[in-house]
Amino acid sequence: MISKFSHNNNQVSNFQDIQNRERRERPIVEHNQKFNSKNFIMTSQTNFCPHEFAKVLDGSCHETRKKWKEFSQDPLFVPRYNISLREQKDLALERLKVVAKNRVFSVHDFAKNPLNVFANHEMAAWVDGSLATKLTVQLNLFGGTVYTLGTERHLPVAEGVDTLSTIGCFALTELGFGNNAVQMETTSVWDPQTKEFIINSPTVLSQKYWITNGALHCNYAIVFAQLILPGNQKEGVHAFLVRVRNEDGSVCNGVFIEDMGSKFGLNGVDNGRLRFDNVRIPREAILNKFSEMSPSGQFTSTIKDKRQRFLKVADRLLSGRICIASMLIGGTKYCLATAIRYGAQRLAVGKTGKSDTPIMNFNLFQNQVYPLLARTITLNVGFNKVKEVYAESLLKKEEASAFLVCLCCAVKPLITWNSRDVGTTLVERVGGQGYLSVNRLSELLPFAHSGITAEGDNSVLMQKVAKELLTLVSKNQFPFSKPSNSRQDIAKMTKITDIQVLIDLIRIREIDLIKEVSVMTQTQMSQGKDIYEIWMEKENAAIQNLARQFGERIIADFAQQNLVNVRQDVKRPFELYFKLHLVSVVLSNLGWYLMNNVITSEAARSLEELRKECIVQIHPIALYSVNAFGIPEHLLCAPIAQNYETYNSKPNNGELITSKL
Amino acid sequence: MISKFSHNNNQVSNFQDIQNRERRERPIVEHNQKFNSKNFIMTSQTNFCPHEFAKVLDGSCHETRKKWKEFSQDPLFVPRYNISLREQKDLALERLKVVAKNRVFSVHDFAKNPLNVFANHEMAAWVDGSLATKLTVQLNLFGGTVYTLGTERHLPVAEGVDTLSTIGCFALTELGFGNNAVQMETTSVWDPQTKEFIINSPTVLSQKYWITNGALHCNYAIVFAQLILPGNQKEGVHAFLVRVRNEDGSVCNGVFIEDMGSKFGLNGVDNGRLRFDNVRIPREAILNKFSEMSPSGQFTSTIKDKRQRFLKVADRLLSGRICIASMLIGGTKYCLATAIRYGAQRLAVGKTGKSDTPIMNFNLFQNQVYPLLARTITLNVGFNKVKEVYAESLLKKEEASAFLVCLCCAVKPLITWNSRDVGTTLVERVGGQGYLSVNRLSELLPFAHSGITAEGDNSVLMQKVAKELLTLVSKNQFPFSKPSNSRQDIAKMTKITDIQVLIDLIRIREIDLIKEVSVMTQTQMSQGKDIYEIWMEKENAAIQNLARQFGERIIADFAQQNLVNVRQDVKRPFELYFKLHLVSVVLSNLGWYLMNNVITSEAARSLEELRKECIVQIHPIALYSVNAFGIPEHLLCAPIAQNYETYNSKPNNGELITSKL
Repeated sequence: MISKFSHNNNQVSNFQDIQNRERRERPIVEHNQKFNSKNFIMTSQTNFCPHEFAKVLDGSCHETRKKWKEFSQDPLFVPRYNISLREQKDLALERLKVVAKNRVFSVHDFAKNPLNVFANHEMAAWVDGSLATKLTVQLNLFGGTVYTLGTERHLPVAEGVDTLSTIGCFALTELGFGNNAVQMETTSVWDPQTKEFIINSPTVLSQKYWITNGALHCNYAIVFAQLILPGNQKEGVHAFLVRVRNEDGSVCNGVFIEDMGSKFGLNGVDNGRLRFDNVRIPREAILNKFSEMSPSGQFTSTIKDKRQRFLKVADRLLSGRICIASMLIGGTKYCLATAIRYGAQRLAVGKTGKSDTPIMNFNLFQNQVYPLLARTITLNVGFNKVKEVYAESLLKKEEASAFLVCLCCAVKPLITWNSRDVGTTLVERVGGQGYLSVNRLSELLPFAHSGITAEGDNSVLMQKVAKELLTLVSKNQFPFSKPSNSRQDIAKMTKITDIQVLIDLIRIREIDLIKEVSVMTQTQMSQGKDIYEIWMEKENAAIQNLARQFGERIIADFAQQNLVNVRQDVKRPFELYFKLHLVSVVLSNLGWYLMNNVITSEAARSLEELRKECIVQIHPIALYSVNAFGIPEHLLCAPIAQNYETYNSKPNNGELITSKL
Repeated sequence: MISKFSHNNNQVSNFQDIQNRERRERPIVEHNQKFNSKNFIMTSQTNFCPHEFAKVLDGSCHETRKKWKEFSQDPLFVPRYNISLREQKDLALERLKVVAKNRVFSVHDFAKNPLNVFANHEMAAWVDGSLATKLTVQLNLFGGTVYTLGTERHLPVAEGVDTLSTIGCFALTELGFGNNAVQMETTSVWDPQTKEFIINSPTVLSQKYWITNGALHCNYAIVFAQLILPGNQKEGVHAFLVRVRNEDGSVCNGVFIEDMGSKFGLNGVDNGRLRFDNVRIPREAILNKFSEMSPSGQFTSTIKDKRQRFLKVADRLLSGRICIASMLIGGTKYCLATAIRYGAQRLAVGKTGKSDTPIMNFNLFQNQVYPLLARTITLNVGFNKVKEVYAESLLKKEEASAFLVCLCCAVKPLITWNSRDVGTTLVERVGGQGYLSVNRLSELLPFAHSGITAEGDNSVLMQKVAKELLTLVSKNQFPFSKPSNSRQDIAKMTKITDIQVLIDLIRIREIDLIKEVSVMTQTQMSQGKDIYEIWMEKENAAIQNLARQFGERIIADFAQQNLVNVRQDVKRPFELYFKLHLVSVVLSNLGWYLMNNVITSEAARSLEELRKECIVQIHPIALYSVNAFGIPEHLLCAPIAQNYETYNSKPNNGELITSKL
């Protein structure tokens, strides 16, 4: 029976001949030229300078970015997919070695040019989220911590970070203490006899968890532990520099390390689970900028409060939030460029029923993608100023102000949540092609989720922001800025089109939410509730809204400030994206504005019209804009970012490097 | 210098002894008992019957579900992670073989018990999204199509589906025609001399793309192709049964197949890219329920319109949407159960600063997770009725009515988008543990995205729904149901708490959007625009809103109807979840209700209060409810769904089966 449907065919397939002829490594370049020849790079009617556009987005460190664009042409940077978890991790390390060889970063950047640290993160994300993650732990969490919390005696290890003679990990998080790390259970007990610290993991929950570079590659760990002196005298959490692998790569005695296995994404990162069993380290291993142990066993610290000691040694996390935001600004622009280039070449059903219309021409695509493009560009421009403010405070070696802490803790959530939304939307709008690893869009989702969780869960950070803000307010130190249009005037408007009014609307909601949360908190406290009950058990939504609105206002203010001095030709497109972003932010809280009679129903309708108009005006410059991000063609290597038809005319097994087929 | 920080340690580690002792396969059962012993299964003050609760959610086919719960105890169903792409695909097939061996599904279900097809999808999703995907193609797309579009001569192949003697794929989608498949370019040319059809893939874009079961496992393909008779007479798209692999598994002559490589997820699915080069198949290979080719070469069809012929042969896609929605109802409940069980055991910072508070007690967790739990339960209950209506029409062998088409095309998007939102939220709220593959939460994101794209892009289906709805309205065939409370009465309310009023609010918005879109369309058409311009190029947002609101209203109506006769004890919890769902839907469009003066600001505030109250009332029954989903402990095997501390007390490398370490 089955044979009934079988068939025979003795003809030779021309197509097969072609396949066999071309069954060799497909040169990426040729592939790219095909794309260029379709003139996707500089099409569409517009007259602004792409290099100037990129310069505004990059903001700083143009030399470093230039170098990345050159050395990333190394074939090692071509994405690989059908390889084992182990191979993915080794590949990420090999790429990190090439980066280090090119001398684009240094631990000395923390003292000389902090912006360069962040620029490296943005560029690394164009290549590979795993590379960026290994880089941020090596350079910022490990290198930066040894460099800033250590002293001259630790400098050789710190400087080894630049050349990878030191590969470090940051052993802070414990299985049971990802949240509430100050309560961690790892101990460092001083042994007066041997003048050593003894590091132990006394419980299952005290195992160091998620430790990047730990599973395979690091030779040093900064281990955070509760310092205990003779007589069980507890001195709080301190940081210790611990050798965890020997010269030959074997794990040191008393250190137990296990790879954490398969993850949602970033499988090139060697996350480890670490445990210490009576690991003895010398007196000099304590990072002694603030606390020191004398040879005679005298412990001294310039910080009296034990919780403050923890916050001090965990200081890199603040910088880490800027690093994560930088990575995801890079990764998000990368995916927008890929998806919009595909939108311009992918044909679907048109007026006549033929498949002759680029999906980018569909209002559906535009409504979903352009507001996110506008938000990403605005976050990037506003975030550049946050980086500058933070870099200045590092250069001045001054304590980060409460307000600066709010900035850093608010922008990381906004940027990583945006990346998640961009990834979610692009994978869906691009359809099937977005589901193939080789097209790299789906990478953005696990990349964003790691950013959402790392260096402080976004929503937990938002609680911190709200708390700091209300403290500043209670001390009259919160820099309230008055809306330029009065509430009365805005409430009378029937049509809103002006950027300043949109910013005022964001500011008005911020001010109201601050008042609302202050009053609500005071009222409930006067009824005998404590702040934990009120914020953690009852009114968390209000706290989240407040912190988020603060972040939106800061981004709006900073973006506006950064756009003042940009060149006229690029100012126009930036302001167009800025306007679409602002109106989208206001519309996302439309119910609030109407419920509180801040705007009229007529004005609300005009906002929806304004949103439509912005999208219509952005359409002709969208493709041009993403090409103006300055991502080199050799990195923008997804088939859908180039010529996906050419790619599919040959065997590839879902890979870019087909020689291994 | 480096040696300065090295250390020595000669002590023996007890922990290490334990590790070595236990370096063997960790029995899942013991692991589960640990969890049970913590009494997470039946805790929390509540008094409804979990089995009755599960019975309402399951709705039908309890025997089939019972069998799945038994045979899925086979160790083959324990998740595996650090294995190659090829191993993942073979594992999915091995699992499918076990399912088939247990005789829980049959192609005859389409004639006898269609609900059983859908029940199998729900259960498969508890095990593995890849298994569910291979099953849906084998049983519904391939089996169902051969069974319903073929005739007696194809029956042996169709019946082979039950035993896997036939493994089939559904070669519809082409690289260039995922959208607009009716324009596909694959050809089937009738050769009068040999009385054969000759199948060809004439262009790169005509390659069959994404073909599940194609890359490795199928021996038959249903190939959709443009039928061309002598004299280049085009008869439209028809379905042909084509042998693509020989008895020995080798690919048949003229057929070229390539695996599509690494994907965002579901890497156990062997998606293939297929090309045909002069593949000759016998006359009998055409699925001839509606069109036939006589031995003398006479072509006849009972369907005159060529587009209708395509729609007829693509009929399984409608059933496919119900299958996909069924899978994702299963997968989403699975992840909610896992995450909420973790929420009940994972401790974070409490009032005193100690880590002593389950994260589930945080208002943050509750605000984000419970509305999605409520929505998932409501979608499940409402969807059960959609399945019944569709199954009836299959049993009556009647053409699906336009309204039924609207139902199927609206619920698939609502359910798959909800799965995406649930996955996004759970991975974030669970934090780091949500990022480990072994905890299975992150699987839901690629699973949802494949459902969002497959069997019709959600947003494209929404356009179809809007179109069908407006046609029904124009024919006065749309079943408008009057709100039970008048607009005037609702507009006067200062407090809204009643379920019926909430349903009315959803209905009112549906009616208004229908009017709005009708008027807008007519007006613009009277101005000379055609419907393509209006809907595709300008006003797509309105179309999307309308179709989505229709879906929300249908789910609300169907859920309400299905809850009328449930037992009193379970009715209470169901109505509580229903109410939270309804108020969330209304609040998600709060701006619209206020802008159009449907409700007052006071009523709007009362809705936010109602939402809070529902969350407070759900908290004590949430854990109990997810345990009452009836997912057996051996399937709920994620460490965070069991005792994650026990799991982390032993070596595991991120796997459940540790024998292979």
